[in-house]
Amino acid sequence: MSNQTSPHATLSPEDVHSVSPALAEYTRSTIVADLWSRPQLSPRDRSAVTVAALIARAQTIGMPHYFNAALDYGVSPAELSEIVTHLAFYTGWSNAFFAVQILKDIFLERNIGLDQLPAASPWLLPLDEIAEAQRAAAVEANFGAVSPGVVHYTAEVLFKDLWLRPDLAPRDRSLITVAALIATGQVVQITYHLGRAMDNGLTRDQASEMLTQIAFYSGWPCVFSAMPIVKDVFANRKTSSLD
Amino acid sequence: MSNQTSPHATLSPEDVHSVSPALAEYTRSTIVADLWSRPQLSPRDRSAVTVAALIARAQTIGMPHYFNAALDYGVSPAELSEIVTHLAFYTGWSNAFFAVQILKDIFLERNIGLDQLPAASPWLLPLDEIAEAQRAAAVEANFGAVSPGVVHYTAEVLFKDLWLRPDLAPRDRSLITVAALIATGQVVQITYHLGRAMDNGLTRDQASEMLTQIAFYSGWPCVFSAMPIVKDVFANRKTSSLD
Amino acid sequence: MSNQTSPHATLSPEDVHSVSPALAEYTRSTIVADLWSRPQLSPRDRSAVTVAALIARAQTIGMPHYFNAALDYGVSPAELSEIVTHLAFYTGWSNAFFAVQILKDIFLERNIGLDQLPAASPWLLPLDEIAEAQRAAAVEANFGAVSPGVVHYTAEVLFKDLWLRPDLAPRDRSLITVAALIATGQVVQITYHLGRAMDNGLTRDQASEMLTQIAFYSGWPCVFSAMPIVKDVFANRKTSSLD
Repeated sequence: MSNQTSPHATLSPEDVHSVSPALAEYTRSTIVADLWSRPQLSPRDRSAVTVAALIARAQTIGMPHYFNAALDYGVSPAELSEIVTHLAFYTGWSNAFFAVQILKDIFLERNIGLDQLPAASPWLLPLDEIAEAQRAAAVEANFGAVSPGVVHYTAEVLFKDLWLRPDLAPRDRSLITVAALIATGQVVQITYHLGRAMDNGLTRDQASEMLTQIAFYSGWPCVFSAMPIVKDVFANRKTSSLD
Repeated sequence: MSNQTSPHATLSPEDVHSVSPALAEYTRSTIVADLWSRPQLSPRDRSAVTVAALIARAQTIGMPHYFNAALDYGVSPAELSEIVTHLAFYTGWSNAFFAVQILKDIFLERNIGLDQLPAASPWLLPLDEIAEAQRAAAVEANFGAVSPGVVHYTAEVLFKDLWLRPDLAPRDRSLITVAALIATGQVVQITYHLGRAMDNGLTRDQASEMLTQIAFYSGWPCVFSAMPIVKDVFANRKTSSLD
Repeated sequence: MSNQTSPHATLSPEDVHSVSPALAEYTRSTIVADLWSRPQLSPRDRSAVTVAALIARAQTIGMPHYFNAALDYGVSPAELSEIVTHLAFYTGWSNAFFAVQILKDIFLERNIGLDQLPAASPWLLPLDEIAEAQRAAAVEANFGAVSPGVVHYTAEVLFKDLWLRPDLAPRDRSLITVAALIATGQVVQITYHLGRAMDNGLTRDQASEMLTQIAFYSGWPCVFSAMPIVKDVFANRKTSSLD
């Protein structure tokens, strides 16, 4: 990881030590030396999951360190840009704007310009017309009379546009979506998106380890509330070598 | 909308564009040009809903822009003051204090003084004694032995005082309460307050479009978790011309 | 309470009054003069509960005042340090870091150095081997195949280490854990931890009044969503003089 930025902007390991030697030591030994070197999830994926959890909870204090870590561990500037955009829809517009406020300075420091970022309106990935028709029909039947506006934007802006943007792989888009859902306690929405994530290539071991990663960054209760749902999703999928 | 303040305090459209041209474009085309001009909810009500969602989630980055927007779209200073006070109780005292920190400067810039703000202890709206007796009896039966303190303050400070303050109409008070509940994932509390909102004059179409508005400002999952409850509330009400 | 710090860092009572005379008056009369003097919970415990609720929700605006209040009301520097460390695990690492950022300056102002803080690796309290074996077996049976990593860290770092650190009594550790769960809407996790809190010496009256305290600092909906669970926990415990 680069040394060009301090671990937490205005917060140094010495600052943490001055309030809690124990917290400084857990950070060093349990998180940095142990958690991040577990083989079940790559540092690149851990970065993406962590960044998603931080954006989902507007945890600005962790963003400078982990945005830089993500870039150092192989999340491209284009992917990071897409993660912020995607999470505007899945965690709220201001959450994305908090991230922009920090990421704009990091992009500036690293000379990352518009040539490295996705266009506003790129060629989209092909739409799976059948799957989208099924999804849209289910949502329309369930909520069409409750909020036509939500149903409209869900189809036109999310599933026929945002999810088809090419600069973040569908598997990664799903990974950060599920991470954000767990980090914000949105347990009811996990079933659909974790299934979609696994359809998009996320393995069972990776999903399992994503929970471990999120436990530290969003707290144990988020993860314990999510585990029964994850358990059901695992149980209800046909076992396959891909999972 | 006035041009006297920048859209997001320290965040300009150029800042957003420098991190994500796509996010800047979604903001311009989908939110500003499209969402805010939908006829199902007035810009004034959209402002109130948005402000409530931002306060509920302590989204300070969006507050300067949307507090000003609310004032420009017809939410009076007295109403905005009451919204902050009301949400202290429904989203937490610090959430209101984050809002105060930003709103005090806006009131100063706009020369909005105490003469335009509600008194600390105004004449209250008349209490619906029968409805309050029913509400209090139900809560006492259910939770009187669980937390006498909560039951006490709920009656004496919330329903016999806060809700009767005259400078925010009961319909608007309900509107921001429901918006805050949806924005914070407090789905179990939606049933009572949405019913009360509709009793207080919120139409079904307005409630429906409120969900659309909140989707962008608090994220899709909040709204998808709320829709089953909203659906039930709609279904369980007698259809009437007022709804 | 000491006068050495302003009530809310950059926010004075006059600031609150300039936006909402009503909010300033509720703060003075309902919270400061009334709530904090209720006999059901000591000011020391109220401080701990309030601090936990603020950390759990990253409410930095309230932290300077209430961290100082906690120290003035008898929460020791060592206990406050442990509260921050404990809540890193139960509310997320960045939540603890937000607290560190504010607490480091308060410790500096008060000349609180490392000699007053718990060591990183102190002698631990004795483990209740039987209870831990039961807990571990239940979690392993339920989630061992869902996330081995979560199960591993839950045992090795949380229950065999963090919970046994001696500078915060188990009863207080449970108190802040339950407060954090209620403040963040993690209702499903309340059953286990409130039971544990009462096993550790928290009385029914104290648990009940904790709900009253949290209502003001995290908002009414958090508490109304928690009360059915608390009610069940109370009902399912054998009545004893300790409860």
